[in-house]
Amino acid sequence: MKLPESTEWALHCVAALAQLPDEAVSAAQLAEHFALPTPYLSKQLALLVRADLLTGTTGPRGGFRLSRSASQVTLLDVVEAVDGSGDPYTCREIRQQGRGAAPPEECRERCFLAQRMRDAHVAWRESLRSVTISSLVASLSEEVRARTRASLSRHVR
Amino acid sequence: MKLPESTEWALHCVAALAQLPDEAVSAAQLAEHFALPTPYLSKQLALLVRADLLTGTTGPRGGFRLSRSASQVTLLDVVEAVDGSGDPYTCREIRQQGRGAAPPEECRERCFLAQRMRDAHVAWRESLRSVTISSLVASLSEEVRARTRASLSRHVR
Repeated sequence: MKLPESTEWALHCVAALAQLPDEAVSAAQLAEHFALPTPYLSKQLALLVRADLLTGTTGPRGGFRLSRSASQVTLLDVVEAVDGSGDPYTCREIRQQGRGAAPPEECRERCFLAQRMRDAHVAWRESLRSVTISSLVASLSEEVRARTRASLSRHVR
Repeated sequence: MKLPESTEWALHCVAALAQLPDEAVSAAQLAEHFALPTPYLSKQLALLVRADLLTGTTGPRGGFRLSRSASQVTLLDVVEAVDGSGDPYTCREIRQQGRGAAPPEECRERCFLAQRMRDAHVAWRESLRSVTISSLVASLSEEVRARTRASLSRHVR
């Protein structure tokens, strides 16, 4: 069970953009900031736009910014923008197959195993949903935030 | 983020074996019970043996049984026997890369994002660890358990 490598990219980009709420930052700037390949990072940023977490603008001053307050964006939002919201456990109803098959009338409710696997996925989602990007950024030192701004802001340079 | 298809197989097999605590059940019997391909199921059963959840014996009366009480086996044990115990999130320390790189002395602790992703994985694991196979089997109706025994026991047939 693996999240895509780009999950780390998306999380760091959103956390970085939350530190420059008044500016648009281009994919090329973010790629340089984290030493990531621009074309592939651009695809991940497009997923964040599609999930309505970022807005993208074009033009010489264009780029990406959070579409709403960082207090309204959770880790779950970012992770699911990249990886989807599906349960990692897939129930293919093998309880209804083979010599031990349960009859359909016994299977109106979700399989007892799938239920418990779902409970665990809910616990995972709730944990990620409880963490806002704003709370994470607030936990960073002023030194870290100043470095992010110095690297990414068009105004500082 | 996906668990392997065989997770469902392993969970159902362990739950079935817990209903026949005094018998060894062969891979072929389990495969027939759930209409699964015996060779691939055998590989999954071998993973459960390697994780010390099942013991396997050979010979005409040989087969698999739980290696300990079903009250001592959790969903987490079974899932991790098949899929490993790794965190689905991989931190490749991109915080230390690129123009925004944090210096090593700032990175003695785990990245703030990896920490929170780890918290979610811990919540997932705790949820699965809280469910024993014995509690699941106890929740099944007597009708279901009788059908399992009728399909899998060498004594009943």
